[in-house]
Amino acid sequence: MGSQHVAGGQLAAAEVVVVGLGLMGGSLAGALRGKCKRVIGLARRQESVDEALDMGLIDSGTTDLAEAVREADVVVLSTPVRVIMRQLEEIATHVPEGCVVMDLGSTKSLIAKNMATLPEHIEPIGAHPMCGKEVSGLGAADPSLYEGRTFILCPLPRTAPAALALAQQLARAIGARPLLLSPERQDYLSATLSHLPYLLACALVATADATTSSDPAAWEIVAGGFRDTSRVASSDVTMMTDILLTNRDEVLGALAAFTSQLQVLTDLVAEGDERAIRLVLERIRSERTKMFP
Amino acid sequence: MGSQHVAGGQLAAAEVVVVGLGLMGGSLAGALRGKCKRVIGLARRQESVDEALDMGLIDSGTTDLAEAVREADVVVLSTPVRVIMRQLEEIATHVPEGCVVMDLGSTKSLIAKNMATLPEHIEPIGAHPMCGKEVSGLGAADPSLYEGRTFILCPLPRTAPAALALAQQLARAIGARPLLLSPERQDYLSATLSHLPYLLACALVATADATTSSDPAAWEIVAGGFRDTSRVASSDVTMMTDILLTNRDEVLGALAAFTSQLQVLTDLVAEGDERAIRLVLERIRSERTKMFP
Repeated sequence: MGSQHVAGGQLAAAEVVVVGLGLMGGSLAGALRGKCKRVIGLARRQESVDEALDMGLIDSGTTDLAEAVREADVVVLSTPVRVIMRQLEEIATHVPEGCVVMDLGSTKSLIAKNMATLPEHIEPIGAHPMCGKEVSGLGAADPSLYEGRTFILCPLPRTAPAALALAQQLARAIGARPLLLSPERQDYLSATLSHLPYLLACALVATADATTSSDPAAWEIVAGGFRDTSRVASSDVTMMTDILLTNRDEVLGALAAFTSQLQVLTDLVAEGDERAIRLVLERIRSERTKMFP
Repeated sequence: MGSQHVAGGQLAAAEVVVVGLGLMGGSLAGALRGKCKRVIGLARRQESVDEALDMGLIDSGTTDLAEAVREADVVVLSTPVRVIMRQLEEIATHVPEGCVVMDLGSTKSLIAKNMATLPEHIEPIGAHPMCGKEVSGLGAADPSLYEGRTFILCPLPRTAPAALALAQQLARAIGARPLLLSPERQDYLSATLSHLPYLLACALVATADATTSSDPAAWEIVAGGFRDTSRVASSDVTMMTDILLTNRDEVLGALAAFTSQLQVLTDLVAEGDERAIRLVLERIRSERTKMFP
């Protein structure tokens, strides 16, 4: 199959190579298997390839990146952001004419800048599925991971309409809802809606670690509120480090906005004006209900 | 039954009055019913009494506080902290000799100070069951709410050993694990482990409200991390206002400790030193795993 098929957006006839068999890649491969001609999995270690085969997530697998992508209609890079940027360079000369190269990195602006410099025969498109879990790794892979989730797509100005259509078809095939955003808008929104909650969870755990955790009673009374608020502090550290390094300005902006909101609440507590406290807490409570009805 | 029975710690023979039929009170009443002589529910509105009767949570009910507690062996005040302080005064002259007066308020130091001034024929003891939910109200009451939860008990120096034993028996009867703490230690720990997460969740919602929520795409991509981290912002506002007003100094201390931890993370992001970021995030991640294995 060549680029003329891609132009038709025929996922069913496509050879898809998933690079990186962690939670996201493994789940994606499993969700696509049977819905395209062939799903090839690529991992650094042969054991991961074997495990993905055993789990029935891929049709075949390899550890040789150049070899894997040679006949690919779609390549999906499912690795941490900075690995993605290296792999874009590595595969550039090996993928065939018209190959759609998509990545699932959590931040998109830097990757889009890199993608813009790829050779012209490649069709690049950024993606970010909203299905983070606090677990990671191939062992947690689950073909239903993307069902009902928003699948952000960030096409470049150079991305052909047919390549975008194929990417949308892929997102729908795994049960997700494609949403088109510019890389900058996705990174701005993600900083507040995803990266900020991670840092708050981390700072909360660090606070308890520095203060209450030395009291054995703390471990008996730490309850649901703390557990929920700190849950994402268990996220994969390599992924989060890459996110913080590649979305720094937006993350710092979100931290500044948060700090100013927390100062408002701190002042309210310090002043102890019941009516003012109640008013603000009621407004916030109803805002959250609007977000998660 | 008089105080001599209480001295024996015989919950089975006790008449228990639960004051306030919200989530906590309604659940407690339901969990105690059948395990003591009689569970009497008190609510401000007759409709709540009727509903609790319909739900099978109480043996009988009333809206008359003075009347309700006249024969009580145990009175449990399950109302917001500042209502508890008013009710302590209200019931003081009506409860019989040796009556155990327990409250379930979320902060304990101020209540303990109030309890210390009660007439001598009363046996006061503070309690704080660790089973907050982001739902509230009688409709959500569930007799299994306390199962497996820590039930903090804050006896006063004047609390008789037999009264403490009865309180412990009550906690165990509803499936909870009693834990003895001083009011000050409970308030210090709760500020970091419970009240701080609430304020962080609120500030996070307020941040999104002030920045990203005006973009319709935000509502499509707000995912699990934000939902978990902001969950407790849906807590009952009256309860939380009382907590913030009655545990102000400890809450401000926890906020200051958090702010300094968040500044550490902010500096790390701003400096962009990968090795330093990774080191700190790994330490926090393993700390959280220790908290919630």
